[in-house]
Amino acid sequence: MAVYTEVSEDELDVFLEQYDLGQALSCKGIAEGVENSNYLLHTESGYFILTLYEKRVNAEDLPFFLGLMEHLAAGGFMSPRPITARDGEKLKEIAGRPAAIIEFLDGRSIRRITPMHCALLGQTLAQLHTIGSSFTLKRPNTLSLSSWRPLYEACLESDGTALGPDLLPEIEAEITYLEDHWPEGLPAGVIHADLFPDNIFFLKDEVSGVIDYYFACNDFFAYDLAICLNAWCFESDGSFNITKARKLLNGYREVRPFSQKELEFLPLLCRGAAIRFLLTRLYDWLNQIEGALVKPKDPIEYYRKLRFHQAVTNVAAYGLD
Amino acid sequence: MAVYTEVSEDELDVFLEQYDLGQALSCKGIAEGVENSNYLLHTESGYFILTLYEKRVNAEDLPFFLGLMEHLAAGGFMSPRPITARDGEKLKEIAGRPAAIIEFLDGRSIRRITPMHCALLGQTLAQLHTIGSSFTLKRPNTLSLSSWRPLYEACLESDGTALGPDLLPEIEAEITYLEDHWPEGLPAGVIHADLFPDNIFFLKDEVSGVIDYYFACNDFFAYDLAICLNAWCFESDGSFNITKARKLLNGYREVRPFSQKELEFLPLLCRGAAIRFLLTRLYDWLNQIEGALVKPKDPIEYYRKLRFHQAVTNVAAYGLD
Repeated sequence: MAVYTEVSEDELDVFLEQYDLGQALSCKGIAEGVENSNYLLHTESGYFILTLYEKRVNAEDLPFFLGLMEHLAAGGFMSPRPITARDGEKLKEIAGRPAAIIEFLDGRSIRRITPMHCALLGQTLAQLHTIGSSFTLKRPNTLSLSSWRPLYEACLESDGTALGPDLLPEIEAEITYLEDHWPEGLPAGVIHADLFPDNIFFLKDEVSGVIDYYFACNDFFAYDLAICLNAWCFESDGSFNITKARKLLNGYREVRPFSQKELEFLPLLCRGAAIRFLLTRLYDWLNQIEGALVKPKDPIEYYRKLRFHQAVTNVAAYGLD
Repeated sequence: MAVYTEVSEDELDVFLEQYDLGQALSCKGIAEGVENSNYLLHTESGYFILTLYEKRVNAEDLPFFLGLMEHLAAGGFMSPRPITARDGEKLKEIAGRPAAIIEFLDGRSIRRITPMHCALLGQTLAQLHTIGSSFTLKRPNTLSLSSWRPLYEACLESDGTALGPDLLPEIEAEITYLEDHWPEGLPAGVIHADLFPDNIFFLKDEVSGVIDYYFACNDFFAYDLAICLNAWCFESDGSFNITKARKLLNGYREVRPFSQKELEFLPLLCRGAAIRFLLTRLYDWLNQIEGALVKPKDPIEYYRKLRFHQAVTNVAAYGLD
């Protein structure tokens, strides 16, 4: 749930003069995305999403994110297209924030995930990797291996023991293990890096949209898969649904086959993906702002996922032969 | 900002089977209304608002509210029309809540209020009173005179001194004064009772929608005007803008002329309208829920408005001759 920055009617009118979308007919704050302010904007040309980028997004990264959405959409991927202003730019400013108007895509994110959705997710993720590989801008993954120890230390400075005395030493041991064993040279390119169920729209049992590219970066393709295995294949009781994992991985390799090395490192990448979300959630949990509108997500959920992957010895545990 | 109850894709699909609107294409929680959960719903038939009625709305009142919206829209007033289900009903249930689908109206609520907006507001309010007078259902005003002393006593039980030691005795004295002087027999009918700037949409300098009828009730027409004078004619620095008040009152009487008695009692009704919002805001302020998404509104704003009207001796202070 978001909407942090309010937009006045005058600001919006002036903003829209830069586009060929006609006048604003309606503009409603929507509860979508937690990093930015989002409005559903109706103009004389149709429906759009107006996004104001808040402080957590680095403004220097915006050309990468918006360029990627444009590139993916042009390649036939279900990304919403950023709308280009009259001067050819996609990034503008409103209410003191960088802002963009994005195509409105129909579809609904789902809460009750079935194996069918996981198969579609796998295909979609592989399409994103394939089409994204010709995108020329680069952005390093600022939330991968090298960020984890600093994030851990920041958690240590806050009262990290609030979640139990054992958690922090276990996290540190895991980071050391990952630093020692992290792979090199796996197939890499643009990854979404945050493809949670909130960020995919389905319509009549097909994927109709993939949104929220604000963590996208260059990294191993298989790391994106690891993020998805964590986000889509655990049940709310903490159990791992191997049927969903199999569907996800098989859906993926229908479009882009895995290398042997990717499969070999998948359990380790799943541990890394679990640490990444465990650390950022822990940090947000320890540093939550009194009265903030966004309730921090449970870090322990990702601790349990980490424990699961630590016990995995090969990809058979994920349903592959 | 709202969205309290989440709706799953399955619940929405089953819900929509009761209507002739086709399938859901998109459904996004919107930050509109503070009492209910609101979604912007796109179906194969168009765009709608899906409202789930939360606990603060008494379910027994919903036929009055929805019937009124239908009645006003049928009479040519800019009220959104509730959509009738196949069985002829407007009120259904989803996710354990009473719910209705309401027509989507274009337009934007305004933050920078001008005298022109106040003139349009006056005309619009008088139209609501005129068209609403033939609506046959009745609903007493549960937040008028007889509710103020109990509300005051509930505030007293909480730590009412938090806002300063003088406030509560002053409020009690005012309630006693209002009880002794409240008029009888003024022209009455259906009033909106909550016509704040959030609840009117403007489009190209015309009123395009009046929403949020969930405080509507039967009471004096001039009391509705008093609520609007308080909500629209004070500046953010607390000063009263007599130009806006004159425009509001003159806009109103172009459509429905005042009686002499209404004018005579207007200052008193403004005091009552100030006490009503002062008390409900004070109650919410004293009983705010830790971590709630809705930040309580400032009660002191209405204390200042009360003080202004206490000093008014006749309607010349509101810009009328």
